Amino acid sequence: MPIIRTQPLTAADFAAYGDVLQATGDPDRVINAGFCGRWHDRARLDFGVDGRAGISIFDAQPRSLPYVCDLLERHPEGSQAFLPMHHNDWLVIVAPDAGGRPGQPHAFLAGPGQGINLFRGTWHGVLTPLHSPGLFAVVDRIGPTPNLEEYRLDPPLTVEA
Amino acid sequence: MPIIRTQPLTAADFAAYGDVLQATGDPDRVINAGFCGRWHDRARLDFGVDGRAGISIFDAQPRSLPYVCDLLERHPEGSQAFLPMHHNDWLVIVAPDAGGRPGQPHAFLAGPGQGINLFRGTWHGVLTPLHSPGLFAVVDRIGPTPNLEEYRLDPPLTVEA
Repeated sequence: MPIIRTQPLTAADFAAYGDVLQATGDPDRVINAGFCGRWHDRARLDFGVDGRAGISIFDAQPRSLPYVCDLLERHPEGSQAFLPMHHNDWLVIVAPDAGGRPGQPHAFLAGPGQGINLFRGTWHGVLTPLHSPGLFAVVDRIGPTPNLEEYRLDPPLTVEA
Repeated sequence: MPIIRTQPLTAADFAAYGDVLQATGDPDRVINAGFCGRWHDRARLDFGVDGRAGISIFDAQPRSLPYVCDLLERHPEGSQAFLPMHHNDWLVIVAPDAGGRPGQPHAFLAGPGQGINLFRGTWHGVLTPLHSPGLFAVVDRIGPTPNLEEYRLDPPLTVEA
Protein backbone atom coordinates (compact mmCIF):
# COMPACT_ATOMS: atom_id res chain seq x y z
CA MET A 1 0.00 0.00 0.00
CA PRO A 2 1.49 3.38 -0.97
CA ILE A 3 2.44 5.68 1.89
CA ILE A 4 2.79 9.46 1.87
CA ARG A 5 3.75 11.85 4.63
CA THR A 6 2.07 15.12 5.53
CA GLN A 7 3.66 18.44 4.66
CA PRO A 8 2.84 21.85 6.14
CA LEU A 9 0.10 23.76 4.32
CA THR A 10 1.63 26.77 2.58
CA ALA A 11 0.15 28.96 -0.12
CA ALA A 12 3.10 28.22 -2.40
CA ASP A 13 2.89 24.45 -2.12
CA PHE A 14 -0.91 24.49 -2.39
CA ALA A 15 -1.04 26.88 -5.35
CA ALA A 16 -1.99 24.25 -7.92
CA TYR A 17 -4.95 23.09 -5.86
CA GLY A 18 -6.52 26.16 -4.31
CA ASP A 19 -6.22 29.12 -1.97
CA VAL A 20 -5.00 29.04 1.61
CA LEU A 21 -7.27 31.29 3.68
CA GLN A 22 -5.48 32.72 6.70
CA ALA A 23 -4.54 35.93 8.47
CA THR A 24 -0.82 36.00 7.81
CA GLY A 25 1.27 38.91 6.63
CA ASP A 26 -0.11 42.43 6.71
CA PRO A 27 -3.89 42.79 6.40
CA ASP A 28 -5.21 44.35 3.21
CA ARG A 29 -7.28 46.76 5.29
CA VAL A 30 -7.46 47.77 8.94
CA ILE A 31 -11.06 48.45 9.97
CA ASN A 32 -13.15 49.15 13.07
CA ALA A 33 -10.96 51.98 14.37
CA GLY A 34 -7.89 49.80 14.27
CA PHE A 35 -9.40 46.86 16.13
CA CYS A 36 -9.66 44.49 13.15
CA GLY A 37 -7.56 43.44 10.17
CA ARG A 38 -9.23 42.33 6.95
CA TRP A 39 -7.48 39.96 4.55
CA HIS A 40 -9.73 40.84 1.68
CA ASP A 41 -11.37 38.57 -0.89
CA ARG A 42 -8.81 35.80 -0.64
CA ALA A 43 -10.68 32.93 -2.34
CA ARG A 44 -11.01 32.46 -6.08
CA LEU A 45 -14.64 31.37 -5.96
CA ASP A 46 -16.15 29.79 -9.07
CA PHE A 47 -19.70 28.52 -9.19
CA GLY A 48 -20.04 27.97 -12.93
CA VAL A 49 -22.71 29.38 -15.17
CA ASP A 50 -25.77 28.05 -13.39
CA GLY A 51 -24.60 27.94 -9.77
CA ARG A 52 -24.52 30.31 -6.83
CA ALA A 53 -22.65 30.49 -3.52
CA GLY A 54 -24.05 28.74 -0.48
CA ILE A 55 -22.85 28.31 3.08
CA SER A 56 -23.31 24.90 4.67
CA ILE A 57 -22.09 23.55 8.00
CA PHE A 58 -20.27 20.21 8.09
CA ASP A 59 -19.75 18.16 11.23
CA ALA A 60 -17.24 15.41 10.47
CA GLN A 61 -15.97 12.65 12.69
CA PRO A 62 -12.32 13.25 13.66
CA ARG A 63 -9.73 10.89 12.18
CA SER A 64 -6.18 10.15 13.24
CA LEU A 65 -2.85 9.46 11.60
CA PRO A 66 -1.90 7.13 10.06
CA TYR A 67 -5.04 7.58 7.95
CA VAL A 68 -6.07 5.22 5.19
CA CYS A 69 -7.60 7.01 2.21
CA ASP A 70 -9.41 4.91 -0.39
CA LEU A 71 -11.47 7.55 -2.18
CA LEU A 72 -10.85 10.89 -3.85
CA GLU A 73 -13.55 13.13 -5.23
CA ARG A 74 -13.92 16.32 -7.21
CA HIS A 75 -16.60 18.85 -7.98
CA PRO A 76 -16.59 19.68 -11.70
CA GLU A 77 -19.09 22.52 -11.37
CA GLY A 78 -17.61 24.62 -8.60
CA SER A 79 -14.99 25.61 -6.07
CA GLN A 80 -15.34 24.44 -2.45
CA ALA A 81 -14.01 26.31 0.58
CA PHE A 82 -13.48 24.66 3.98
CA LEU A 83 -13.36 27.06 6.92
CA PRO A 84 -12.61 25.38 10.26
CA MET A 85 -14.92 26.49 13.09
CA HIS A 86 -12.19 25.49 15.53
CA HIS A 87 -8.55 26.34 16.11
CA ASN A 88 -6.95 22.92 15.60
CA ASP A 89 -4.96 21.34 12.83
CA TRP A 90 -6.69 19.20 10.20
CA LEU A 91 -5.75 17.08 7.22
CA VAL A 92 -6.10 18.01 3.54
CA ILE A 93 -5.47 15.41 0.82
CA VAL A 94 -5.38 16.57 -2.79
CA ALA A 95 -4.08 15.30 -6.12
CA PRO A 96 -3.46 16.78 -9.54
CA ASP A 97 -5.58 15.58 -12.40
CA ALA A 98 -3.91 13.08 -14.70
CA GLY A 99 -6.13 12.54 -17.70
CA GLY A 100 -9.43 12.39 -15.86
CA ARG A 101 -8.18 10.49 -12.83
CA PRO A 102 -6.13 11.54 -9.82
CA GLY A 103 -2.35 11.74 -10.15
CA GLN A 104 0.07 11.47 -7.23
CA PRO A 105 -1.71 12.59 -4.01
CA HIS A 106 -0.27 15.07 -1.51
CA ALA A 107 -1.25 15.40 2.15
CA PHE A 108 -1.14 18.82 3.78
CA LEU A 109 -1.38 19.43 7.51
CA ALA A 110 -3.47 22.60 7.87
CA GLY A 111 -2.58 24.43 11.05
CA PRO A 112 -4.84 26.34 13.45
CA GLY A 113 -6.34 29.32 11.63
CA GLN A 114 -5.93 27.87 8.14
CA GLY A 115 -8.86 27.37 5.80
CA ILE A 116 -8.71 26.42 2.14
CA ASN A 117 -10.62 27.04 -1.06
CA LEU A 118 -10.31 24.18 -3.52
CA PHE A 119 -10.44 25.23 -7.14
CA ARG A 120 -13.25 23.80 -9.25
CA GLY A 121 -12.30 20.29 -10.29
CA THR A 122 -9.51 19.67 -7.74
CA TRP A 123 -9.28 16.03 -6.66
CA HIS A 124 -9.46 15.82 -2.85
CA GLY A 125 -10.12 13.47 0.01
CA VAL A 126 -13.18 13.72 2.21
CA LEU A 127 -13.14 16.17 5.10
CA THR A 128 -10.67 14.92 7.72
CA PRO A 129 -10.50 16.82 10.99
CA LEU A 130 -7.92 15.45 13.42
CA HIS A 131 -9.59 16.71 16.62
CA SER A 132 -13.06 17.19 18.04
CA PRO A 133 -15.17 19.12 17.14
CA GLY A 134 -14.97 18.43 13.42
CA LEU A 135 -16.97 21.53 12.54
CA PHE A 136 -16.43 23.44 9.30
CA ALA A 137 -18.29 26.10 7.37
CA VAL A 138 -18.27 25.16 3.70
CA VAL A 139 -18.78 27.66 0.88
CA ASP A 140 -19.61 25.79 -2.27
CA ARG A 141 -21.76 25.75 -5.33
CA ILE A 142 -25.51 25.39 -5.04
CA GLY A 143 -26.92 24.43 -8.41
CA PRO A 144 -29.34 22.27 -10.37
CA THR A 145 -26.97 19.68 -11.85
CA PRO A 146 -24.76 16.91 -10.39
CA ASN A 147 -21.42 18.12 -9.08
CA LEU A 148 -19.58 15.07 -7.79
CA GLU A 149 -17.10 12.64 -9.33
CA GLU A 150 -15.51 9.92 -7.23
CA TYR A 151 -12.41 7.82 -7.82
CA ARG A 152 -11.63 4.80 -5.70
CA LEU A 153 -7.96 4.30 -4.86
CA ASP A 154 -6.91 0.69 -5.30
CA PRO A 155 -4.75 0.00 -3.43
CA PRO A 156 -5.64 2.59 -0.76
CA LEU A 157 -3.21 5.29 0.28
CA THR A 158 -1.82 5.58 3.80
CA VAL A 159 -1.08 9.05 5.14
CA GLU A 160 1.49 9.20 7.92
CA ALA A 161 2.50 12.16 10.04
CA MET B 1 -25.90 55.50 29.49
CA PRO B 2 -28.35 52.81 28.36
CA ILE B 3 -27.55 49.25 29.41
CA ILE B 4 -28.62 45.99 27.79
CA ARG B 5 -27.89 42.40 28.74
CA THR B 6 -26.85 39.59 26.47
CA GLN B 7 -29.27 36.87 25.48
CA PRO B 8 -28.43 33.45 24.02
CA LEU B 9 -28.23 33.33 20.23
CA THR B 10 -31.16 31.31 18.91
CA ALA B 11 -32.51 31.11 15.38
CA ALA B 12 -35.95 32.19 16.59
CA ASP B 13 -34.76 35.28 18.43
CA PHE B 14 -32.36 36.23 15.63
CA ALA B 15 -34.86 35.68 12.81
CA ALA B 16 -35.41 39.37 12.07
CA TYR B 17 -31.68 40.00 11.66
CA GLY B 18 -30.23 37.00 9.89
CA ASP B 19 -29.45 33.29 9.89
CA VAL B 20 -27.79 31.33 12.68
CA LEU B 21 -25.30 28.93 11.10
CA GLN B 22 -24.75 25.86 13.24
CA ALA B 23 -24.88 22.07 13.27
CA THR B 24 -27.92 21.51 15.46
CA GLY B 25 -30.81 19.17 14.87
CA ASP B 26 -30.58 16.47 12.23
CA PRO B 27 -28.28 17.15 9.27
CA ASP B 28 -29.93 17.69 5.90
CA ARG B 29 -27.60 15.08 4.39
CA VAL B 30 -25.17 12.49 5.70
CA ILE B 31 -22.14 12.21 3.41
CA ASN B 32 -18.72 10.56 3.27
CA ALA B 33 -19.95 7.06 4.10
CA GLY B 34 -21.64 8.27 7.25
CA PHE B 35 -18.66 10.18 8.62
CA CYS B 36 -20.02 13.70 8.01
CA GLY B 37 -23.29 15.57 8.41
CA ARG B 38 -24.14 18.44 6.09
CA TRP B 39 -26.47 21.23 7.19
CA HIS B 40 -27.11 22.39 3.68
CA ASP B 41 -27.27 25.91 2.28
CA ARG B 42 -28.24 27.57 5.54
CA ALA B 43 -27.51 31.23 4.75
CA ARG B 44 -29.77 33.52 2.78
CA LEU B 45 -26.96 35.20 0.85
CA ASP B 46 -27.73 38.39 -1.06
CA PHE B 47 -25.09 40.30 -2.98
CA GLY B 48 -27.33 42.66 -4.94
CA VAL B 49 -27.36 43.15 -8.67
CA ASP B 50 -23.73 44.11 -9.20
CA GLY B 51 -22.00 42.15 -6.43
CA ARG B 52 -20.55 38.69 -5.95
CA ALA B 53 -19.59 36.52 -2.99
CA GLY B 54 -16.13 36.82 -1.50
CA ILE B 55 -14.38 35.19 1.44
CA SER B 56 -12.20 37.39 3.63
CA ILE B 57 -10.43 36.62 6.89
CA PHE B 58 -10.89 39.00 9.83
CA ASP B 59 -8.60 39.08 12.86
CA ALA B 60 -10.23 41.22 15.54
CA GLN B 61 -8.96 42.20 18.95
CA PRO B 62 -10.92 40.40 21.69
CA ARG B 63 -13.20 42.53 23.87
CA SER B 64 -14.74 41.87 27.25
CA LEU B 65 -18.01 42.51 29.02
CA PRO B 66 -19.22 45.02 30.01
CA TYR B 67 -18.61 46.36 26.50
CA VAL B 68 -19.30 49.92 25.47
CA CYS B 69 -20.71 50.22 21.96
CA ASP B 70 -20.81 53.65 20.36
CA LEU B 71 -21.22 52.74 16.69
CA LEU B 72 -23.55 50.62 14.60
CA GLU B 73 -23.15 50.01 10.90
CA ARG B 74 -24.98 48.35 8.04
CA HIS B 75 -24.23 47.19 4.53
CA PRO B 76 -27.00 48.30 2.16
CA GLU B 77 -25.70 46.29 -0.78
CA GLY B 78 -25.25 42.84 0.67
CA SER B 79 -25.50 40.19 3.36
CA GLN B 80 -22.51 39.49 5.60
CA ALA B 81 -21.73 36.14 7.22
CA PHE B 82 -19.36 35.75 10.18
CA LEU B 83 -17.93 32.27 10.66
CA PRO B 84 -15.77 31.89 13.76
CA MET B 85 -12.46 30.08 13.12
CA HIS B 86 -12.43 29.13 16.80
CA HIS B 87 -14.71 27.33 19.22
CA ASN B 88 -15.40 30.11 21.72
CA ASP B 89 -18.34 32.36 22.41
CA TRP B 90 -18.50 35.83 20.87
CA LEU B 91 -20.74 38.86 20.98
CA VAL B 92 -23.26 39.94 18.33
CA ILE B 93 -25.00 43.33 18.59
CA VAL B 94 -27.82 44.09 16.18
CA ALA B 95 -30.73 46.50 15.94
CA PRO B 96 -33.86 46.78 13.83
CA ASP B 97 -34.14 49.67 11.44
CA ALA B 98 -36.32 52.53 12.59
CA GLY B 99 -36.75 54.93 9.71
CA GLY B 100 -33.19 54.88 8.47
CA ARG B 101 -31.50 54.74 11.87
CA PRO B 102 -31.07 51.92 14.39
CA GLY B 103 -33.94 51.10 16.74
CA GLN B 104 -33.51 49.36 20.10
CA PRO B 105 -30.32 47.24 20.02
CA HIS B 106 -30.11 43.62 21.13
CA ALA B 107 -26.98 41.76 22.23
CA PHE B 108 -26.65 38.04 21.50
CA LEU B 109 -24.05 35.76 23.00
CA ALA B 110 -23.07 33.38 20.20
CA GLY B 111 -21.88 30.07 21.62
CA PRO B 112 -19.10 27.79 20.38
CA GLY B 113 -19.99 26.51 16.93
CA GLN B 114 -22.36 29.34 16.07
CA GLY B 115 -21.88 31.56 13.04
CA ILE B 116 -24.30 34.11 11.66
CA ASN B 117 -25.35 35.57 8.34
CA LEU B 118 -26.64 39.12 8.65
CA PHE B 119 -29.29 40.03 6.12
CA ARG B 120 -28.50 42.89 3.77
CA GLY B 121 -29.11 46.15 5.58
CA THR B 122 -29.11 44.81 9.16
CA TRP B 123 -27.71 47.30 11.68
CA HIS B 124 -24.91 45.67 13.68
CA GLY B 125 -21.95 46.39 15.89
CA VAL B 126 -18.38 45.78 14.82
CA LEU B 127 -16.93 42.29 15.17
CA THR B 128 -16.53 41.52 18.88
CA PRO B 129 -14.82 38.28 19.79
CA LEU B 130 -14.59 37.68 23.54
CA HIS B 131 -11.52 35.44 23.47
CA SER B 132 -8.26 35.11 21.58
CA PRO B 133 -7.86 34.38 18.70
CA GLY B 134 -10.43 36.73 17.20
CA LEU B 135 -10.35 34.99 13.83
CA PHE B 136 -13.38 34.84 11.57
CA ALA B 137 -14.04 33.95 7.95
CA VAL B 138 -16.39 36.52 6.47
CA VAL B 139 -18.54 35.91 3.41
CA ASP B 140 -19.76 39.20 2.09
CA ARG B 141 -20.38 41.22 -1.02
CA ILE B 142 -17.55 42.20 -3.30
CA GLY B 143 -18.69 44.97 -5.57
CA PRO B 144 -17.91 48.28 -7.23
CA THR B 145 -20.00 50.67 -5.10
CA PRO B 146 -19.87 51.80 -1.46
CA ASN B 147 -21.54 49.41 0.95
CA LEU B 148 -21.23 50.94 4.42
CA GLU B 149 -23.47 53.19 6.51
CA GLU B 150 -22.48 54.10 10.05
CA TYR B 151 -24.53 55.49 12.92
CA ARG B 152 -22.93 56.83 16.06
CA LEU B 153 -24.77 56.02 19.29
CA ASP B 154 -24.99 59.06 21.55
CA PRO B 155 -25.02 58.24 24.39
CA PRO B 156 -23.15 54.95 23.91
CA LEU B 157 -24.68 51.63 24.82
CA THR B 158 -23.26 49.36 27.51
CA VAL B 159 -23.61 45.60 27.04
CA GLU B 160 -23.47 43.55 30.23
CA ALA B 161 -23.35 39.79 30.60
